[in-house]
Amino acid sequence: MSKTDPLADLIAALQRLPGIGAKSAQRLAYHILKTPRADVDAMCDAMRSVKENITYCSICSNITSFDPCMYCISPERDARTICVVEQPENVAAIERTRGFKGHYHVLMGAISPLQGVGPDDLRIKPLLQRVGRTDIGEHERVTEVILATNPTVEGEATALYLARLLKPLGARVTRIAMGVPVGGDLDYTDEFTVSKAMEGRREV
Amino acid sequence: MSKTDPLADLIAALQRLPGIGAKSAQRLAYHILKTPRADVDAMCDAMRSVKENITYCSICSNITSFDPCMYCISPERDARTICVVEQPENVAAIERTRGFKGHYHVLMGAISPLQGVGPDDLRIKPLLQRVGRTDIGEHERVTEVILATNPTVEGEATALYLARLLKPLGARVTRIAMGVPVGGDLDYTDEFTVSKAMEGRREV
Repeated sequence: MSKTDPLADLIAALQRLPGIGAKSAQRLAYHILKTPRADVDAMCDAMRSVKENITYCSICSNITSFDPCMYCISPERDARTICVVEQPENVAAIERTRGFKGHYHVLMGAISPLQGVGPDDLRIKPLLQRVGRTDIGEHERVTEVILATNPTVEGEATALYLARLLKPLGARVTRIAMGVPVGGDLDYTDEFTVSKAMEGRREV
Repeated sequence: MSKTDPLADLIAALQRLPGIGAKSAQRLAYHILKTPRADVDAMCDAMRSVKENITYCSICSNITSFDPCMYCISPERDARTICVVEQPENVAAIERTRGFKGHYHVLMGAISPLQGVGPDDLRIKPLLQRVGRTDIGEHERVTEVILATNPTVEGEATALYLARLLKPLGARVTRIAMGVPVGGDLDYTDEFTVSKAMEGRREV
């Protein structure tokens, strides 16, 4: 490695990004070196703009450039169904299906004792407040809470924890299905997923 | 995808980087969103610093923050051996071996008619001038030119082209060995590489 410091600094900075190893960081750094200055500036502006203009929705905690977010204020969406996810990027994943027209609630993580994340570190209280509101009309109240936390140990634990707290509030509490992914192959699917797929079987 | 524009802009900018697809760009963008502002600024500063402080060595065309570069001015390196590579990152790759103590010459590409890169687009003339110098003492002249262009069709063509021009200048012209990589497996090595390994066999 040549001892030209600015390049080494950039490689070190890039390596801190998720999924970028030593090799990728080096390739990116050399790419940036060859990139016109204007493009580098545009990239920096885009990064700073994200930091400056994106905040979190005060209702659902999703990322947004205005508050409340577009999902919370949309007249076309049904506020009586709330889909609970771990991270803002999970909202984007569900939106890509174009099948869900309810509201969201982002927990900002999942319960993980190993990583020191307890229920109080997540946006659980605001969720309970949303679901348990009594200051609104009967037909406006939340009727279903879909627990769409990830199908991991942490996501499952969080879903079970939330289910226990939410059920007494009167809303239906559901969990997204786990099973063999579409286009997947049983042979290449791990036994936990296959067992979930068997458990979740439905009449055809 | 949520329609928060700054994020979409950033994802688009990141996707233009080499080896970063839609999924990686999204993951990076969400990571940047969660990164403290100071870290984002540091990253931008590192990118701009690379653009501002790194230039090309006027002798060997390697990247450097001062001119001539550390390899060209080092008293510990032997100017009589020149290693010719395609790109500045190739210099870094050879330096990592810690085995080469000569000088470098970066061509800034390889001959590639398909991509419209001809000999005149590369730093070939300065190489010929370096090797053919007659204004210096006999014992300072270049004695060996190692052609370390990549083992690709373009790199091979460039090496052959250079060999033809360099040989009349009196220096030894050598080409790096091609063969089975260390730790590799003959079974998983393509037939061109195996055939090169057979051709390049040596007495043990």
